[in-house]
Amino acid sequence: MTTTSKGEKTRDHILKTTRKILVAQGFHNTSISAVIEATGVKKGNLYYHFASKEDLGLAVLEDAKDEFFSFLTKALVGHDPLAKIINSCKAIFAEQEKNNFVGGCLFGNTALEMTDSNEKFSGVIQEVFTRWTGLLEEHLDEARTASLLPTATQPRLLAKTVVATLEGAIMMSRVSKDKNDLNDFLAAITSLLGR
Amino acid sequence: MTTTSKGEKTRDHILKTTRKILVAQGFHNTSISAVIEATGVKKGNLYYHFASKEDLGLAVLEDAKDEFFSFLTKALVGHDPLAKIINSCKAIFAEQEKNNFVGGCLFGNTALEMTDSNEKFSGVIQEVFTRWTGLLEEHLDEARTASLLPTATQPRLLAKTVVATLEGAIMMSRVSKDKNDLNDFLAAITSLLGR
Repeated sequence: MTTTSKGEKTRDHILKTTRKILVAQGFHNTSISAVIEATGVKKGNLYYHFASKEDLGLAVLEDAKDEFFSFLTKALVGHDPLAKIINSCKAIFAEQEKNNFVGGCLFGNTALEMTDSNEKFSGVIQEVFTRWTGLLEEHLDEARTASLLPTATQPRLLAKTVVATLEGAIMMSRVSKDKNDLNDFLAAITSLLGR
Repeated sequence: MTTTSKGEKTRDHILKTTRKILVAQGFHNTSISAVIEATGVKKGNLYYHFASKEDLGLAVLEDAKDEFFSFLTKALVGHDPLAKIINSCKAIFAEQEKNNFVGGCLFGNTALEMTDSNEKFSGVIQEVFTRWTGLLEEHLDEARTASLLPTATQPRLLAKTVVATLEGAIMMSRVSKDKNDLNDFLAAITSLLGR
């Protein structure tokens, strides 16, 4: 059991609440006063935990990154490496559906909003994409070694395609708000993996 | 030859200038006064052409949509339908590189910023994705009929995968600012099409 101090609890409360606001309206449209109002935390206390709005944004991304990889690791389950990847995609799409196709992917959203203007933000997002692709690549390598994929398969390229398709799929289904779109994309990824 | 009136020229000047601003900073962060400053058009004249900021945003999307499909139609060239698709992807990536990976895709950006809050915007973006996917599907159908693809190929799913991969690829390469990323994605799409 981890003991959590009051300060840590407050910090986590600020991070999770701010994440919801950022997912809904992006970084530029989120004011510190909106965070204060939504969290109920006093201004001085907020600045005690985060020196600036940029610091807070970065900490939200870092926190969401940790949560995403713990989610992904749990979702990568199945009887073989390809089933693991497909199940992880299913789990990601299920989240999107659970959120009624609203909000989408914090990393994707922030990538489009912030990477041209803020290197610190793009650093964290780059880390998410690289680590995610790397995890899938390991599974695809394993699948190829186990002859579940043709020898000519390039695990690195295929892993990047799966991640790009997922990000594109989340974007496109946010526009259509149509569950059938996600089913199509899942079928497409399944077929990409030769299943 | 089309004759263009002074009013049409002004309208087009406003549309093209506003598009650059929207690509760079999104809809919410773009103020009417920024548009007035960048275009040099008087406020009354701007409102003569566009009744509101929303109207202007929608007109920019419609104008960009027309330009994109004329670009895409020209880029879909090659000795067979698969070569045509691959060349269109190359042309899209070349644009991304030409822009130094800055800005990305106006439709993708606006999708992530606006679709949860504005149905008119998401309507135009949905049209772009549907028409783009439809065009690729026609080419893939043709390729399957010409036995350039396995009979089991599902043109609709494959077309959606190509569009999603492109949108994801533009997003991911905006983060990495790395030309090798685009080469990887082009190789991935080429391999998706069995080439």
